[in-house]
This record gives sequence, C-alpha cells and structure tokens, in this order.
Amino acid sequence: MNIIDTLNWRYSTKDFDPTKKISEDNVKQLKALLRMSPSSTNIQPWHFLIAGDKEGKERIAKGAQGFFHFNEPKILNASHVVVFCSRTSADEDYMLHLLDKEEKDGRFPNDEVKQNTHGGRNLFADIHKYDVKDFQHWLEKQVYLNIGNFLLGAATLGIDALPMEGVDLKALDGEFGLREKGYTSVAVVAVGYRTDSDFNTTDRTPKSRLSEAEIFTLL
Amino acid sequence: MNIIDTLNWRYSTKDFDPTKKISEDNVKQLKALLRMSPSSTNIQPWHFLIAGDKEGKERIAKGAQGFFHFNEPKILNASHVVVFCSRTSADEDYMLHLLDKEEKDGRFPNDEVKQNTHGGRNLFADIHKYDVKDFQHWLEKQVYLNIGNFLLGAATLGIDALPMEGVDLKALDGEFGLREKGYTSVAVVAVGYRTDSDFNTTDRTPKSRLSEAEIFTLL
Repeated sequence: MNIIDTLNWRYSTKDFDPTKKISEDNVKQLKALLRMSPSSTNIQPWHFLIAGDKEGKERIAKGAQGFFHFNEPKILNASHVVVFCSRTSADEDYMLHLLDKEEKDGRFPNDEVKQNTHGGRNLFADIHKYDVKDFQHWLEKQVYLNIGNFLLGAATLGIDALPMEGVDLKALDGEFGLREKGYTSVAVVAVGYRTDSDFNTTDRTPKSRLSEAEIFTLL
Repeated sequence: MNIIDTLNWRYSTKDFDPTKKISEDNVKQLKALLRMSPSSTNIQPWHFLIAGDKEGKERIAKGAQGFFHFNEPKILNASHVVVFCSRTSADEDYMLHLLDKEEKDGRFPNDEVKQNTHGGRNLFADIHKYDVKDFQHWLEKQVYLNIGNFLLGAATLGIDALPMEGVDLKALDGEFGLREKGYTSVAVVAVGYRTDSDFNTTDRTPKSRLSEAEIFTLL
C-alpha cells in the first residue's frame, strides 16, 4: 500500500469491533512509534498510559463520563487505548538526565558535542520559558507531533485509530495521579479494528479536505 | 521496510545533498501527507508554503539569518522546503466554509449530521476560545500533529527531513505577508536526501530515546 492509499484508508474510527485484539507484535510496533517519535531538541516531554484489558480501559473511561459520555464506548470497545501525557516541567535535572541517556546511547564523540547539545536544548527551552512564555504549550506541541506520528504509523500497520480530545483531562490526571508525577494528560487515542457497520468508513462517508489551491502556496 | 526499521532509519538530517531532487511523484505524495493529515474536528487550521527551487528557498532562508544562521545551509541545500503555518482565527465564516466543503465532498447523509458536525466543531473551538483560553495554541497543536504525520510519511518514502523551530518566524511572516492573509508561521521542514558524510546518520551517531520503563505505564 503506498502512502496515498494509507492516507485514504485511515479515518477516525467511530465503532471498534470489541472482539478484535491487536497482536503482540503490532503492540510492540505501536510502542516503538511512541518511543521513537521525534521532538524538538529530542526533549521527549511525554509519558504514555497504555491499557490493553478491560480494567485498564475502564479506568481510562472515567475520563469519558457526563459531558464526554459519547466517547465511552469507543474507549471500552477498542483493543488498546493510549493516554498521551505531557511533562509539566523540564528542569535542569531532567535536561541532565536526557544528556546522560544520550551519552550512554553513544551520541557524543567528544565533550564539545555534549555541551553543545545541552546548551542548544536549554536555549530552545529558555526561548519558550522566558521570551515567548508558552513553555507548557511548547511541550504539549511535541506531544501532538507524537500523536501525528502515531496515527500515521498505526494506519501503516492497518490498525484503526481514534484520537480524542473530548475527554475530561482533569479526571484522568486525578485517576492516575499524573500531576503528582509531573505529567498532565493531553489527549487519548483508541486503537483497534473497525466494524463493518461503522458509518465513518471511507466507503460510506468520503473524506473531506480543503483544496490544494487553498492550503498550498508554491513559491 | 517495517515501521521499526523506518523509525530507526529516519533522523534529523543535518547535511542535505544539494544535487539530489525529490521526484515529482514523491512531491505529490508529500503534498498528500500535508493535505490529508487528521486534525481535531477536521478543522484543518493550516497553510503551507512550499519551495522547490533556488529562489523560493532563498526567500525562506530569510528566516535563517543572524541568530538562526546555522539553519541557512540546511534550507538552501534541501530539495524542497515547507513552511508550516497556522491560521490565526477560525471564525463562523471559516467554520461554514469547512462545512460547505464537507457537504460537497459527500460527508452528510442528512441535515442532522451536517448540523451536528457544525455544532461539534464549534463546541470544541469554543472550549479553547472561552474556557481554556488557548485557542491559538490549540490551532498550532493541530499543525504540530500534521508535522508528525509528515515526518513519518517522508521517512516511509525514503525521504530525509529536518524539522526546524530555529527560524525567525516573525521574519517569515513578514516576507510572505502571512499575517495579512490570516496565517502565522510555526515551523519549517526541509526535505531531501542526506549526504554520505552527514554526522547525524544513525550509522555514525546512534539515536537516543528514554527507556520504555520511563515513558510507559502499562495499566
């Protein structure tokens, strides 16, 4: 399948088949997508809660009560559900922890490269902390980049996905004690396999996008 | 190539071969990635400037002067360069325009579905406009999701990419009159092909990521 076919095949699945489970091998590949995603300066400001059984999904579904009840069956019927979380800080300890991991992974041929990496990451972080003053949003933008990577990657594997912002993030933070751990939930993505009757499949409901003429300026 | 191989193959290319151009067919696929990306409620709050020749790249390189000069050669040597822009508003006219396009594309079997789509999109937008009060960041998060989709898609096509936040976004907005058109630049992604001597290839400099134990909580 080429990339255009993949893009046309994927859609926000509204109706997961509760009897279909993602294989262990595919779960491994989905985890690789989450872990290997790029991020600005490799800051990796994320954490992921992953549910693959009834109990885990029921805990995540606590974020889909009341106003967001329409998302509850999607969470419960999916094979697996991922809660994408952002870090709420990236202090010097965390920056040094990243640097240490990069050193152990063999990224630094010499101390100059190491110090430049540390300085560059702090420089970008400081722009957002002190100049633009949007540090939390900058961290969360990296998480959204990860979501985009994850959604296309899942489609490449033939796995359906439904990204959901329509969840009670505060309830999820509470249920999993995320804030105490330095994280906050940003979005939920359910993954699994569509039913034959899902109204939103591209066979029934064509995709819609703005025209090339509207979104592209060719210089 | 499976997805794990693709994830390991991709890296932020630091040294593009200026003699290698992306084929017309691959440019078409890259444009499909940009256009078909998912976004919350299909709001598609984006615009893309695409340069494929010297003159276009030189205009984008005006965003890589002075402080950000280290990114100038990457822009000039890449095959193509994309400036990712966010909309700066999504007023009722724009919301109705999206709805009209979706209707023409055949997404609405009846008026109820159409009105629910319109209401749902406005509901999410209003949460960010009035409750969370982070509307611009919410729009830009969708653009970051598009970037994540684009980076993995490019890698799937065997195309190298370098995402750059280190550019003078205000200068780019001015050069291309973006603000007057209702857009603002968010990031730049250069695409092309790595040189054999690029220090950052995974052969020379291994990738580094935080451990699974640190980033995953399995429920």
